[in-house]
Amino acid sequence: MKLLRVGTAGAERPALLDRDGTLRDLSAIATDIDGTLLSDAALLDRIRAAAGAGVLPPLDGAGLRIGPPVARIGKVVCIGLNYHDHAAETGAATPAEPVVFLKAPDTVVGPDDTVLVPRGSVKTDWEVELAVVIGRTARYLESAEEGLAHVAGYAVSHDVSEREFQIERGGTWDKGKNCETFNPLGPWLVTADEVPDPQALGLRLRVNGEPRQNGSTADQIFPVGEVVRYLSHFMTLYPGDVVNTGTPAGVAMGQPEPKPYLRAGDVVELEIDGLGRQRQQLKDA
Amino acid sequence: MKLLRVGTAGAERPALLDRDGTLRDLSAIATDIDGTLLSDAALLDRIRAAAGAGVLPPLDGAGLRIGPPVARIGKVVCIGLNYHDHAAETGAATPAEPVVFLKAPDTVVGPDDTVLVPRGSVKTDWEVELAVVIGRTARYLESAEEGLAHVAGYAVSHDVSEREFQIERGGTWDKGKNCETFNPLGPWLVTADEVPDPQALGLRLRVNGEPRQNGSTADQIFPVGEVVRYLSHFMTLYPGDVVNTGTPAGVAMGQPEPKPYLRAGDVVELEIDGLGRQRQQLKDA
Repeated sequence: MKLLRVGTAGAERPALLDRDGTLRDLSAIATDIDGTLLSDAALLDRIRAAAGAGVLPPLDGAGLRIGPPVARIGKVVCIGLNYHDHAAETGAATPAEPVVFLKAPDTVVGPDDTVLVPRGSVKTDWEVELAVVIGRTARYLESAEEGLAHVAGYAVSHDVSEREFQIERGGTWDKGKNCETFNPLGPWLVTADEVPDPQALGLRLRVNGEPRQNGSTADQIFPVGEVVRYLSHFMTLYPGDVVNTGTPAGVAMGQPEPKPYLRAGDVVELEIDGLGRQRQQLKDA
Repeated sequence: MKLLRVGTAGAERPALLDRDGTLRDLSAIATDIDGTLLSDAALLDRIRAAAGAGVLPPLDGAGLRIGPPVARIGKVVCIGLNYHDHAAETGAATPAEPVVFLKAPDTVVGPDDTVLVPRGSVKTDWEVELAVVIGRTARYLESAEEGLAHVAGYAVSHDVSEREFQIERGGTWDKGKNCETFNPLGPWLVTADEVPDPQALGLRLRVNGEPRQNGSTADQIFPVGEVVRYLSHFMTLYPGDVVNTGTPAGVAMGQPEPKPYLRAGDVVELEIDGLGRQRQQLKDA
């Protein structure tokens, strides 16, 4: 299923995009798309049955904003340097184990919302990523298979990053990862049953129409199931938590000088096979 | 005022500890102590007036668990190496600007709840810290005075840290800061009007009765108002967000070998002048 949330920011309603491309209202069945829903197999089955039976009321999507597909996200865990080609372009060694950092859930916005260039920023950069949404509490898992079994679904994520804040201002990467609007998510949460192989997804990102990233999750150093297993030994993952699993090569930081960092007016478009597209315009904060 | 939340985990009710030391029930006035309450000056005034008039019903505190004093925390931002003596003991240079990292809100537990030593951990360490709770949205503040004006109150925080995960496993410090139960908070949120000088608070921590940390916020490299101002240029702080402002010297990592890292059975007691005491027993995860 393709689950989504539509409406003004903070007042989104749950919806479903059916196989015919018709937007359907879920609010009679589900209060919202969040960790509670994603951990409720019976409710997900009821939604699936209702969608299959064609009984969900259609919604007029014209002019409707799409919000992030998950509400009340508990935490956003990010994996750094998780593609061979991206580790190489940044000059970093291939990590021996996953590099972990965090984004605050308040950085998450809708897939087509405005992204703000922070005041004083000269190195705002893009990163298309496969986001994993957790469906079951994950704690000390033993295998990558178990890791995959704790995934509710997948979405497109934009891990916007300010490289000066991240690398040149002291401390950890978090300083360049948590500016407001820095994590567009969506348009949809595609449930795991419809993503047979999360390691075979093409990811693409364009800036002002120019192709910048064109990778595949096949190039991930640590695949999704292993990432979830690994994280579960350092923190407990709860339903509704999001894991951004890293970006392929092609970020601004990896380009020759003058590096094409983002500025107000730029337009970034992202897509992942089967997971939909995002489009953001940059503005000054 | 001393605001707190009492009851079983996940079902706490809001309460107030009055000047006589009597626990008072706030549930008739406030649904919970969270960002919504902390940004509502009129409601805080009503609570203050009711407390002063002695009309709040008493609560029998006997046997009642104390939870974290803030519900629905949006993010926990931490400042590293923010005391001259602690930076020295870790061998780090005095930072030129604040070192920032994040803890997930799901690490927050009550002040006397069990703290779990993660599986495989041999370097679980303690850190007593002054926590700042945000009361007004803070975005691009211009002065430390403005920073202080955005603080709702203060609390004792225990920034439990696993040093091997934090430092020796690759990536950022977040990997050793987000294990479950790693952020006891409370007992109280003491409103800012009752903390005339946040830079004159003694902080103490004992392990199994032995004094380990004995510092003062006077030794902070970046004082509270400056920390809030600084952070507001890298992220937006919202009501109910928590900032752990760093720890003074005396952590296990700073001791001679064999370093006295925490193990199951150990008891840690923390206190800050005017903000109350915590006591945790360690158990294996």
